[in-house]
Amino acid sequence: MSEWARVTPRDFRQACREGRYAGTTRGVALGYLQCNLVMIREPFAYEFLLYCQRNQRACPVLEVLDAGDPTPHLTAPGADLRTDLPRYAVYRDGRRLTDVTDASPLWQPDFVSFLIGSGIAFDQALEDAGVPTDKDRWVIRTTIPTIRAGRFHGPMVVTMRWLTPEHAIRAVQVTTRYPFNHGAPIHIGDPAAIGADLANPLVGPPVDRVRDGVVPVFWACGVTPQEAALVAGIDIMVTHAPAHGFVTDWEAKRLAIP
Amino acid sequence: MSEWARVTPRDFRQACREGRYAGTTRGVALGYLQCNLVMIREPFAYEFLLYCQRNQRACPVLEVLDAGDPTPHLTAPGADLRTDLPRYAVYRDGRRLTDVTDASPLWQPDFVSFLIGSGIAFDQALEDAGVPTDKDRWVIRTTIPTIRAGRFHGPMVVTMRWLTPEHAIRAVQVTTRYPFNHGAPIHIGDPAAIGADLANPLVGPPVDRVRDGVVPVFWACGVTPQEAALVAGIDIMVTHAPAHGFVTDWEAKRLAIP
Repeated sequence: MSEWARVTPRDFRQACREGRYAGTTRGVALGYLQCNLVMIREPFAYEFLLYCQRNQRACPVLEVLDAGDPTPHLTAPGADLRTDLPRYAVYRDGRRLTDVTDASPLWQPDFVSFLIGSGIAFDQALEDAGVPTDKDRWVIRTTIPTIRAGRFHGPMVVTMRWLTPEHAIRAVQVTTRYPFNHGAPIHIGDPAAIGADLANPLVGPPVDRVRDGVVPVFWACGVTPQEAALVAGIDIMVTHAPAHGFVTDWEAKRLAIP
Repeated sequence: MSEWARVTPRDFRQACREGRYAGTTRGVALGYLQCNLVMIREPFAYEFLLYCQRNQRACPVLEVLDAGDPTPHLTAPGADLRTDLPRYAVYRDGRRLTDVTDASPLWQPDFVSFLIGSGIAFDQALEDAGVPTDKDRWVIRTTIPTIRAGRFHGPMVVTMRWLTPEHAIRAVQVTTRYPFNHGAPIHIGDPAAIGADLANPLVGPPVDRVRDGVVPVFWACGVTPQEAALVAGIDIMVTHAPAHGFVTDWEAKRLAIP
């Protein structure tokens, strides 16, 4: 387990802000809610929020900031979304540019920031239930369609984990309790049934074969709306880099069904 | 139990459309998802959706229609929200006018329709668990603040039910499984603790005393956003009349956590 597993959210965000941490947030501040981030200009905000509403399983919106405000007053008072993530993805006119570790130079005065639930949020609960979360995990495109909202549409992105059958069953039980963080898996077994693009994961090396003794388990992923925004070709968008999320002050279990 | 308890959603909507039914939807088409309705003009749609997102417990949005479209393609294909509810509340410039049974004459070409989860959705589940749902139930204003979004703000509206202690506990268990229909109660016991306005319920006669052997149980209510829109004083808004909801084709248990 990383030395960052037990850091407080505030200290972790400060480390990001000062450039002392730029790696993945998997395994970081375990037990705290992590969110995916999307920052877009105000003219796109309604269609984007509508897209999230229509595809809530993949895009559970947890906080929307007022235009021009970089501080999530609800989930992390005092934080600054422009600096407090370890790494950002940058999109211009539908193309992904090079990642950055400080989004301040890209900030637009009418940026609306969306914090969207992440499956990383239930890692601690999975660990508590004996399900390992630190490896064999990918972010992958599928051919499952999402419901369109204006310019936003496209296929669902999933998180795939290889799990033993026993762990897969336990993982269904645990994640069912997190309806605001993607909830239960959307698929178990044959990746081809959902058109999972194993050759070109968005995060992780190519997945080149079926393994003995484990089954692939798929959850709807908060990277889905980024892909939709890519399709929409909007002028400028800044998001978390996949697997480099925003660590809030909320304990993840706060969003769990008892 | 009413003769309408076992009607199909389609037949019920047809009865509304033809003016053969104009009463409450409590006890109607039991087991099917009922929704609260809000129709507002497009310039208010983003702020309203944002208000719902920020107050999800009271305003769980289940479907948002494209501007100018009166058909909920997701939850009731073929239905028409202008005619298929038994009774509508009408608001102009922040004042509530006389209810109507047909909203067609009020329809605006840029109306955006919002369907919002309703506690009526879990009545069948409560009945199955032995909790009676057909009486001792009110819709009441409180002093619990909601989170503002633009022009929309105001206090939370709640549904209050008198239940025996045994039924209250069972009701907590059952409704916890419906996070997209207000979920678990927000309060049990002393109405004064949440500023519940027992003298002026929005639905039901005045509640004038504490009763022996029962405890008041309070759920966040989907009428909350109507009150916020009233405060916002927007030009024209048409909604369901309280306790006169829209009956969808979805079985309510579809939205339940297993």
